[in-house]
Amino acid sequence: MSSTTAPEKLSTNASFDGELVKLSAPANSLGGLKTTFNVFLPRQALDGDKVPVLYYLAGLTCNEDTAPWKGGFLRDAAAEGIALVFPDTSPRGADIDGEDKDWDFGTGAGFYLTASKEPWKKHYNMYEFITSELPSLLAAASLPLDLSRSSIFGHSMGGHGALTLYLKSLLSTSPSTKYLSASAFAPIANPTQCPWGDKAFKGYLAGGLDEGKQYDATELVGQLKGKDGVDLKVLVDVGTGDQFYQQKQLLPENLIAARDAAGFSASQLAVNLHERYDHSYYFISTFAPAHIKFHAEVLKAAK
Amino acid sequence: MSSTTAPEKLSTNASFDGELVKLSAPANSLGGLKTTFNVFLPRQALDGDKVPVLYYLAGLTCNEDTAPWKGGFLRDAAAEGIALVFPDTSPRGADIDGEDKDWDFGTGAGFYLTASKEPWKKHYNMYEFITSELPSLLAAASLPLDLSRSSIFGHSMGGHGALTLYLKSLLSTSPSTKYLSASAFAPIANPTQCPWGDKAFKGYLAGGLDEGKQYDATELVGQLKGKDGVDLKVLVDVGTGDQFYQQKQLLPENLIAARDAAGFSASQLAVNLHERYDHSYYFISTFAPAHIKFHAEVLKAAK
Repeated sequence: MSSTTAPEKLSTNASFDGELVKLSAPANSLGGLKTTFNVFLPRQALDGDKVPVLYYLAGLTCNEDTAPWKGGFLRDAAAEGIALVFPDTSPRGADIDGEDKDWDFGTGAGFYLTASKEPWKKHYNMYEFITSELPSLLAAASLPLDLSRSSIFGHSMGGHGALTLYLKSLLSTSPSTKYLSASAFAPIANPTQCPWGDKAFKGYLAGGLDEGKQYDATELVGQLKGKDGVDLKVLVDVGTGDQFYQQKQLLPENLIAARDAAGFSASQLAVNLHERYDHSYYFISTFAPAHIKFHAEVLKAAK
Repeated sequence: MSSTTAPEKLSTNASFDGELVKLSAPANSLGGLKTTFNVFLPRQALDGDKVPVLYYLAGLTCNEDTAPWKGGFLRDAAAEGIALVFPDTSPRGADIDGEDKDWDFGTGAGFYLTASKEPWKKHYNMYEFITSELPSLLAAASLPLDLSRSSIFGHSMGGHGALTLYLKSLLSTSPSTKYLSASAFAPIANPTQCPWGDKAFKGYLAGGLDEGKQYDATELVGQLKGKDGVDLKVLVDVGTGDQFYQQKQLLPENLIAARDAAGFSASQLAVNLHERYDHSYYFISTFAPAHIKFHAEVLKAAK
């Protein structure tokens, strides 16, 4: 990998006594394409404290701005003194034929994996970007972050990303980033068994669904069974009014079954179903305070 | 005016234990054009209580969705048990030549006035719509709202709208809607003296700037001087990092001078300047909790 240079600062917005900083950098893992991400720094960070980091992965069609705008996360992150990092959902501008044809594949739909199939493998590597290159870029930006205390959460495709990046870090002996906790709003919890995941894995991966199992939260929980010293700190919220839940794109029931089969408890991997709530950011923002609190307790205890 | 028929319900999103309802109706005051607005109903309303109403007027280029998405208002409104009503910023689809040419005039820029100049006077009547027809539509929708307890707030052009609708209701002996309090984020506080207001008033009003004085918060505060029994309940927040403040589009200093000249106190009309904050919803959401609390105290005391 080429050496990491400091990202360019595009803008700063004061918010909740801290600030939201927008940064941009070419990413080696994305074939050299420029990518943009937002970082919320709480007051404590502006005053020079190294604060823990909570990554947020957004869902299909979204970008790095969606959650800062609509998630309602900054207020509680400010109160807890933790930083938030919002990357994009895919590379932009790879100029691949068909890249912009569908809303659930290509641009805005990177699925947080490392592509192994042409013509995607050069650019569509959000897994590598998030777990490895993004932390290097944050370090190169000289932001007051304690990257050794990182957690991750996300929505829908990003909920899938958050769960899988966390679970993969537990399965690895030397993860690029070790996440201390994970949470998800309406995650695609068993992508090898649903239409969105089927399309993504067959599209991006030379090995198709079989290769996709390493990016499937339900599969990964099964792989953790009996592994010594593994504790889980996972929170999942899903609305039963969610059309994608009803269409079996999310399949939290499979994640629950895998958890139970692997011998993990509901307090290690909590899956809460909520009547009436849908897939929108109106759902997310409602449960945002609980998710920030969940991660803040873990991150602050790790100091 | 034709009789008011019940608005059509377009969608419902559960949020913060309440729900956001999107409604649509043809508006007589907007030349019969269909307009869309959002209503947030807290849990108390879903349970059948008649809750007080806080109207939010959005700024240039925005619509009825901007603030529900980005404002961070629903959480505190839910906690306080007050409803929020989010109308659009202008009529849509009047099909007037030049209507979509500029971002600060025409579509998305209704300026909360009653147009008196051709070709705008048939449709561009957001003042009449907000103060008179919208409450009738809310009543016709049979929502559990106590419309006798209404307050109003807004941002930028909508801050101008909130302040002027409130102040005009104090000056009127029989206002269509009597607002109990008003607040504004970065309002255009003296539009007859700034480029945005100059363009709007000369464009929409046959009497130009002179007619525009009745839609100018700084002018209206002056008119309230010495009026018996008038109390003010107004809160204004402005960021000094706001480019439009710096460009003299907002002129809160003129509002302060008018307040002082009219003998009102800073607790009756508070104008707070905040370093670093800009014109964005990152600024608004930061001060959202304080604005909701300000109105909730007034609205709940009025029961």
